[in-house]
Amino acid sequence: MQILHTIPRADGFRMPAEFDRHEGCLMIWPSRGDSWRNGAWAARRAFVEVACAIAQSEAVTMLVEADQYETARAMLPPAVRLVEMATDDAWARDVCPTFVRNDQGLLRGIDWGFNAWGGLVDGLYFPWDKDNHVARKVCDLYRTDCYDFRDFILEGGSIHSDGEGTILTTENCLCSKGRNPHLTREEITQKLCEALGAEKVLWLPRGIYGDETNEHVDNICAFTAPGAVVLAWTDDPDDPQYALSQACETYLAAQTDASGRRIQVTRLPIPQTPVRITEAECEGLDYWDGVPTRTPGERLAASYVNFYIANHAVLVPQFDDPMDDVACDILAKAFPTRTIIPIAAREILLGGGNIHCITQQIPQHERSRCYA
Amino acid sequence: MQILHTIPRADGFRMPAEFDRHEGCLMIWPSRGDSWRNGAWAARRAFVEVACAIAQSEAVTMLVEADQYETARAMLPPAVRLVEMATDDAWARDVCPTFVRNDQGLLRGIDWGFNAWGGLVDGLYFPWDKDNHVARKVCDLYRTDCYDFRDFILEGGSIHSDGEGTILTTENCLCSKGRNPHLTREEITQKLCEALGAEKVLWLPRGIYGDETNEHVDNICAFTAPGAVVLAWTDDPDDPQYALSQACETYLAAQTDASGRRIQVTRLPIPQTPVRITEAECEGLDYWDGVPTRTPGERLAASYVNFYIANHAVLVPQFDDPMDDVACDILAKAFPTRTIIPIAAREILLGGGNIHCITQQIPQHERSRCYA
Repeated sequence: MQILHTIPRADGFRMPAEFDRHEGCLMIWPSRGDSWRNGAWAARRAFVEVACAIAQSEAVTMLVEADQYETARAMLPPAVRLVEMATDDAWARDVCPTFVRNDQGLLRGIDWGFNAWGGLVDGLYFPWDKDNHVARKVCDLYRTDCYDFRDFILEGGSIHSDGEGTILTTENCLCSKGRNPHLTREEITQKLCEALGAEKVLWLPRGIYGDETNEHVDNICAFTAPGAVVLAWTDDPDDPQYALSQACETYLAAQTDASGRRIQVTRLPIPQTPVRITEAECEGLDYWDGVPTRTPGERLAASYVNFYIANHAVLVPQFDDPMDDVACDILAKAFPTRTIIPIAAREILLGGGNIHCITQQIPQHERSRCYA
Repeated sequence: MQILHTIPRADGFRMPAEFDRHEGCLMIWPSRGDSWRNGAWAARRAFVEVACAIAQSEAVTMLVEADQYETARAMLPPAVRLVEMATDDAWARDVCPTFVRNDQGLLRGIDWGFNAWGGLVDGLYFPWDKDNHVARKVCDLYRTDCYDFRDFILEGGSIHSDGEGTILTTENCLCSKGRNPHLTREEITQKLCEALGAEKVLWLPRGIYGDETNEHVDNICAFTAPGAVVLAWTDDPDDPQYALSQACETYLAAQTDASGRRIQVTRLPIPQTPVRITEAECEGLDYWDGVPTRTPGERLAASYVNFYIANHAVLVPQFDDPMDDVACDILAKAFPTRTIIPIAAREILLGGGNIHCITQQIPQHERSRCYA
């Protein structure tokens, strides 16, 4: 693995869309007790279900802390590869490399700076050094060269690519004080375009209400095809999400993508009943720095947009809500060639994210098999 | 990775010879302070030299404890892949899987039981649980299925294969009380033949004087071709090695291999001056369980037989001794198609082994590239 200090766009590399063909998918085995209740046991079952569903489409590699290898191996099917790696938590989307590819099919990774969603300003845990090293180690594992963007703070969940030059992000997150406060929105636009081989960034103003990542785009809006997105939505004007989704829809209606297309927006409802953590669920959480990490009754940032697009399937989070089926129906129409796999996702959500947050795709590439 | 409980020989698998074509080589980054003096710093330089030399022939993967990743990455060239793995020490030969292959080129690993060269009887450290899990984890990493032989204690350094049905081992080691005392030599012969797809085991009586592995074969005798071995040798009847090498030569003279060939024995001298650890070297070693792990003046089991056969090279340990060149010349004749690479090996020897002990080849195979 070479560490590269050049610019991916200048080198002819760009980020493929998630709906482009994958070689595989990375995940991280959950274990920290202040993120995942009851010693992460319930979350693990959900992670296993996600891994098994993706493994039907593509090769899954689960990264695991050394002391959890035996447990993970016992709970996962043989098709899922386990590789030891030190991490601070289990958010593969945010700590694994963002992969870029050139026209010859060569793959490279981007190693962004990671500071736990806001560092000492409003980050979610401390320290985060192990997470910050994951991207480079994953590139090493796959023998892919690695672009050094460690001076720019970004998590994979804060960007989507249409694979054709358009990046989708949220202003609330990428312009937050805890990430790159020395950069203007225009400078961040330039950085994203250079790193991801893009020409245009669409800046949604906001994300999902209560999303503790400063409102990652991957919880509110996602490409389903070039020029088409689904947007988390509520028709209830009393819901705090209402104004946020409205603002995004208004923004998108005035935009075109890098190819000059208008953006076709499909509304995807949020759960009818807000998902709140119960007192019993809170009791299963370890304390952090002397205080509980969640409060009973706290509303969680539940959204069906946090799905994962595998080669042959779309994994859709489910919250035991009447909107579960509605969301699956809408996504079935948006992804007509893929099977919709509903996943009971409450335990993932309790940790602060969802299916998209715990996965990171590896695009298909020329040397799709790493050598010994 | 599937765990298999069948018999490799019955499944059509056998262990290729080391001089057969490799896909790559596994090593483990040294770090324990009671094996390697001065916090393993001097040993690391030697390991880096070994890795670089092998990387000219084949893909090297270095397994590394999480907290040593940064240091190892800084010291190793980009061509060497680093993968995190928990280990108890750095003996890849003894803890990594022994690979077997079938006629279709499919690769599988064997996971032997490992008890640190003798367990509670005369093992060299405690605990050894991380080492005992390495073989299975390496199979997982390479997505190769793994034969479960954990009820049979064996280290990779105690066997050599000619790739044509003959296994070379030492009675002093494999019949030791600390390994499989419940099995007779005949039962061990059968176990080796079943696991390694062999028909015959050649039982050298002894190994190198002072070898703390109970005299592994890989320090005294090695195949250079089917039907041909090099044997560590001294002409000095006062050297304690004299009788041991004599006994091996006498044994081999009376044997044929699995194909019915007589064994052609080439004598390979041991260093002219016994290699002894100095007081200064001992002072750099951490204590273990309250006692020093070595005594100043202690004779180390130095042998040129502990070489590694890479695809295009043979790495030969050197001890700053007049016999260094003699050994290289003899091995150059034995391996006429390969470059001889002399490696200053004193720091590896201080840890208790040599180049062959810190490497494990991955035979070339059908799916030589693991997928994502």
